[in-house]
Amino acid sequence: MASASPSPSASPDVLVVGAGVIGLSIAWRAARRGLTVVLADPQPGRGASHAAAGMLTPVSELQYGEESLLRLNMDSAARYPAFAAELEEASGLPSGYRACGTLAVALDADDRAVLKDLHAFQSRLGLASTWLTSRECRRFEPMLSPAVAGGLHVEGDHQIDNRRLVAALLAACEREPGVTLRPARATALLTAGDRATGARLDDGTDVSAGQVVLAAGCWSNAVEGLPPGLLPPIRPVKGEILRLHVPDAYRPFLSHNVRGVVKGGSMYLVPRADGELVIGATENDLGYDTEVTAGGVYELLRDARELVPGVTELPLVETHAGLRPGTPDNAPLIGRTGLDGLIAATGHYRHGILLTPVTADAVAELLADGTVPDVVRPWGPARFTATTGKELSYA
Amino acid sequence: MASASPSPSASPDVLVVGAGVIGLSIAWRAARRGLTVVLADPQPGRGASHAAAGMLTPVSELQYGEESLLRLNMDSAARYPAFAAELEEASGLPSGYRACGTLAVALDADDRAVLKDLHAFQSRLGLASTWLTSRECRRFEPMLSPAVAGGLHVEGDHQIDNRRLVAALLAACEREPGVTLRPARATALLTAGDRATGARLDDGTDVSAGQVVLAAGCWSNAVEGLPPGLLPPIRPVKGEILRLHVPDAYRPFLSHNVRGVVKGGSMYLVPRADGELVIGATENDLGYDTEVTAGGVYELLRDARELVPGVTELPLVETHAGLRPGTPDNAPLIGRTGLDGLIAATGHYRHGILLTPVTADAVAELLADGTVPDVVRPWGPARFTATTGKELSYA
Repeated sequence: MASASPSPSASPDVLVVGAGVIGLSIAWRAARRGLTVVLADPQPGRGASHAAAGMLTPVSELQYGEESLLRLNMDSAARYPAFAAELEEASGLPSGYRACGTLAVALDADDRAVLKDLHAFQSRLGLASTWLTSRECRRFEPMLSPAVAGGLHVEGDHQIDNRRLVAALLAACEREPGVTLRPARATALLTAGDRATGARLDDGTDVSAGQVVLAAGCWSNAVEGLPPGLLPPIRPVKGEILRLHVPDAYRPFLSHNVRGVVKGGSMYLVPRADGELVIGATENDLGYDTEVTAGGVYELLRDARELVPGVTELPLVETHAGLRPGTPDNAPLIGRTGLDGLIAATGHYRHGILLTPVTADAVAELLADGTVPDVVRPWGPARFTATTGKELSYA
Repeated sequence: MASASPSPSASPDVLVVGAGVIGLSIAWRAARRGLTVVLADPQPGRGASHAAAGMLTPVSELQYGEESLLRLNMDSAARYPAFAAELEEASGLPSGYRACGTLAVALDADDRAVLKDLHAFQSRLGLASTWLTSRECRRFEPMLSPAVAGGLHVEGDHQIDNRRLVAALLAACEREPGVTLRPARATALLTAGDRATGARLDDGTDVSAGQVVLAAGCWSNAVEGLPPGLLPPIRPVKGEILRLHVPDAYRPFLSHNVRGVVKGGSMYLVPRADGELVIGATENDLGYDTEVTAGGVYELLRDARELVPGVTELPLVETHAGLRPGTPDNAPLIGRTGLDGLIAATGHYRHGILLTPVTADAVAELLADGTVPDVVRPWGPARFTATTGKELSYA
């Protein structure tokens, strides 16, 4: 990374607004293709990327009505091994990728019915998952409660330690001569005619750039000067999440991601190789606050305890909340906007970590070659503005 | 407070080992009586004094079999208003004392029977407490669950913000020319013949003193060179505790201390004037670890929610654990030990904050005048060594 230049005349090929995993990986990939990139963020990697659990589980978390998104999710999951290896090589740091497989388990008979339906749906789509009895679940994960009523083994659903991923991406950008990190917030888009030409930063400088990538998560619409309705509303969906520690004496405790359906609700436990155990996550979209509530922590611990009673013995190391960027259809915005020179890479909702490789590769290709890869073509912002735009007037 | 002197020849009248609320208040009171004091602690006020909730509730927390301790508890509670006022004057800081009264409430019929028994016991001892129906409980505290089955109002049981108390005591000691704080651990007692003469600190210096006060909580027996069996065992009793924040829109939320009996267990909610809400506390005596467990947090939130459902909306600001110093009879050790020149002021278990004024006054009197005030006479360490001492061989 070149040393930060305070000069307002800095004029890179690309300005990336937002340095979460999406912005960082785009900057890194674009620089690899020979572009010069300025990346602006007052707190790189400290938003949703820091809060996440890092589940890479497109099959276990398949949602009804999101079959079309599945292709994108599967594509990105498939890119992860090579992406992680290349990132480790580039950064000299571990990526935190862990090919651990996932168990989805049900607490009671109603929850089992939910998972049975999911299993049937997965099978119809040709996805690999295996039904397990309660006993089989416990053979995979002996710490599971005997009350567990059955589950699914999804051998191909893995995880990455999102905080190690952030650290590795930051290091890779630092080592990449084409990337300059500016620790400042982009407050306003700069335009000339019908074209984006850069952004004003809150350190008082302007950055002019050939192309601008908006990757600011749930704050993407807060950049001034965006033409009204250019992007659909992106709502903050707060997620509270816990980090526990598994002492050596209890290892491995859990070996797979465990996704639970507990009395109709959904939660997960993600065990890291280093003993961290992530338990998440609540969801509510009441605003931009990131306070951890007593009720959120209570619900997560209550459900985790139902599935894995031994969690009560583990130290609770951290409680945290972050804001997922949710679009009206809960799918990401990746591609050209209605303003020339402005590309969107935001709105990844619950799947920002999963979708990092495909987003980075696609946006880097778009920036370098001007072509939109097929896999992201359905997810351009134009899918919203192609309508009358009326329902977007509050954007 | 005089500037710390590294000289090993520093020779104050008194060396106090441990700067929790007990050690700090003794140092302050002793200096007020004209004595020079060195106070040794690597982290003043960061042990049990920092973890506590600050309930001053001798009547609501009356235990069967502890009638004799009640006199000491009541005496100290009665000293609090003047002690707090004098401390505010001396320190220039708020003491955090709050004359708020206490409600003890029962969740179900069995819990109500427990409180009915407590009420009868209080009445037999002539203590002021008033029985309340469920509706009356909610008139005092509208946030209580309608499920609450009844309770007690104890008008004379109050609270102090233990962290403000620590800060004020530290400031009072700083302003007191006779007190020198040494940020170091006392590792070994120094003796000459049958007399304590000072202590060795872990910064490599020795402090000689006319008298030594041992006020190191559950670490009191860890000081090397203590004659075996001089003190009874002092076990660490871990307590996990939560700190929530009541946003302005929800104030006052609670106005009294609320002690709950919930399905046979006991817990409390302590509302501060500044919006902090303290919820405590677990108890287990498995060792010296101070890790907050997922199970401890879960149980506190579960019970708090049963009594006051609205807590789920409040931000959870802090989880913390500390170690109460528990003696074999759960009563404190205040007074002369079997070693000349060594005075004990430790083992306050759950009542260190409550017992601060009486302990400080009594020990200061003992240090200055050589007399043991009647109120602490039953609580000298001699009550253990007066037996055969056989059961103390593991001390």
